[in-house]
Amino acid sequence: MDNSIFIGTKPFMNYVTAVVMQFTTKNSNEIIIKARGKFISRAVDVAEVSTKRFLDSQVSVKDIKIDSEEFQNNEGRQVRVSTIEITLARN
Amino acid sequence: MDNSIFIGTKPFMNYVTAVVMQFTTKNSNEIIIKARGKFISRAVDVAEVSTKRFLDSQVSVKDIKIDSEEFQNNEGRQVRVSTIEITLARN
Repeated sequence: MDNSIFIGTKPFMNYVTAVVMQFTTKNSNEIIIKARGKFISRAVDVAEVSTKRFLDSQVSVKDIKIDSEEFQNNEGRQVRVSTIEITLARN
Repeated sequence: MDNSIFIGTKPFMNYVTAVVMQFTTKNSNEIIIKARGKFISRAVDVAEVSTKRFLDSQVSVKDIKIDSEEFQNNEGRQVRVSTIEITLARN
């Protein structure tokens, strides 16, 4: 079972619900919230709201990694983008 | 000496230069990049570009913390905002 949630343009609460459901109805022990570029701020919001408002004292941030990815954009130019992976785990 | 750099609306390279200077000309061993809300993505970019493009093999990410702050907005409503602190340290 895949335990990654990739943050993009969907409504904010969709992601929070997805995270909360993974821990409650799907009984996961650990999930990873992933995002790139401008969605990194949103990934942090999802982690904070999920753990503090909905899963307080049950789940917390276990690890945070940042990195860079290189890719070619539409004009063939090499572009760097930052990434984040926030691991949430059951206490 | 304060070793925090707070990320806001200034040009991106100003922050990268500030980080690089702290380690080179000011000889710091550790600096903390801080940001709130939508500037969190930018803080990650500053950390990635500083460590990988300018201080590669000299400085790396030592710790990342995320948290939430509550404050009252102009209409007197209680608002939550996410925060990040990225600690960079000499290898």
